[in-house]
Amino acid sequence: MKFCTQCGESVERRIPEGDNRERHVCPACGTIHYHNPRIIAGCLPIHDGKVLLCRRAIEPRLGYWTLPAGFMENGETTEAAARRETLEEACAEVEIDTLYTLTSIVHVNQVQLIYLAQLPQPRFAPSEESLEVRLFDEAEIPWDELAFETIRQVLRLYFEDRRRGRFPLRHIDIDRDATPSVRIHD
Amino acid sequence: MKFCTQCGESVERRIPEGDNRERHVCPACGTIHYHNPRIIAGCLPIHDGKVLLCRRAIEPRLGYWTLPAGFMENGETTEAAARRETLEEACAEVEIDTLYTLTSIVHVNQVQLIYLAQLPQPRFAPSEESLEVRLFDEAEIPWDELAFETIRQVLRLYFEDRRRGRFPLRHIDIDRDATPSVRIHD
Repeated sequence: MKFCTQCGESVERRIPEGDNRERHVCPACGTIHYHNPRIIAGCLPIHDGKVLLCRRAIEPRLGYWTLPAGFMENGETTEAAARRETLEEACAEVEIDTLYTLTSIVHVNQVQLIYLAQLPQPRFAPSEESLEVRLFDEAEIPWDELAFETIRQVLRLYFEDRRRGRFPLRHIDIDRDATPSVRIHD
Repeated sequence: MKFCTQCGESVERRIPEGDNRERHVCPACGTIHYHNPRIIAGCLPIHDGKVLLCRRAIEPRLGYWTLPAGFMENGETTEAAARRETLEEACAEVEIDTLYTLTSIVHVNQVQLIYLAQLPQPRFAPSEESLEVRLFDEAEIPWDELAFETIRQVLRLYFEDRRRGRFPLRHIDIDRDATPSVRIHD
C-alpha cells in the first residue's frame, strides 16, 4: 500500500496511538488502514464415496488439482461462499454438511474453511476457473498433482477419518517453514 | 474507497473481465481492489463455572459487556488471535479448548469465531480496552447490558449446552433484519 484510499496522499507506516503494531497511516487525513487475513471457503464434495476435484484453469498452480474453494465475498455467509465457489468452479450444486477443517495459513494471511458436502447428483462440468472436473476414488487421488499443501492435508485427514467413521473438526496451522500442525476439536 | 492504493489515482467501480461483480478498479494502473470479510476471534473464558466478561472502554458500545474478542491480525492463527485478544482486553491468560461458534455477520462483513477456553487462575484486570473485567455466574449475566447480539447468542447457547453437557460447534448467521439462524454441527 502506497497511497491513502480516502484522500490519495502517500501513506506512512507507524504505530497509531493506543495501538501496538505498525499500520499504514495517512499523514494528511489521519485514516488508519488495517490489513487483515482473508477467508477461503470451499467444499469437499462427495458423490457415491468419490471426491470431486477441479483442475485449475487459473494461476496460481494452473493445471494442478484442488477442491473447489475461493475467497469469501462481502455480503455472504461462510456456507454460502463455499456453495458459490463449488458452483463457480465445478458447476456443481452441493448440500453442505459440517465444517471439517479450519486452516490458518499464517504466511499468506489466509484462513481456509472446508465443509464436507454431498453432491446428490453426479452433475458437474469445467468452468472458466477449471480445465477439468471429475470424481476420484481414494486410490485415484492425484497426490503428486495437488495444487496446495492445505488441500493435501484436508484429503489426507478425510480418508483417515472415513476409515474411523468420524469427522471431527480439525484445526490446521500452516506456516512457511514449519511442519503443519493438526489439532482435533472433538 | 476513492483512490488507488498503488498509484493514487481515482478508482472507478466496474465488473472486471472474467469476474461477475463490481470491484474498485484503477483506470490508470489497472489494479483491482478486492474487499473481503474480516475475522473477529475471541474466547468464552471459564473459571470455576463462571464466565469472564469485559465492559467496553471503547466505541462501539462503550460501557456494555462483551466476551474478549477482536479483529484477527495478519501473521497469526485464529487461536493465537483469540488468546491475544483475551490478554489485551482482560489481561487474562487462557487455554483454548474447542471452537464453539462460527458466526457470519452478513451486513457488516464479519465472521466471528468464539473458542471455549479455560481460565486456570482467576487473574484478570481492566485494560485500555476494558473499563471493568469480572466473572459472572449464569444468574448474574447482564443480559440487558450486552454489547452485541452475536455475544448474546453465544452466551445463550453456552448455558443451554452446559445443561446438556455437550458443546457442538454452532454455525450462526446474522443479517440486519432477519432472525438469527443457528445450525448445529455435530
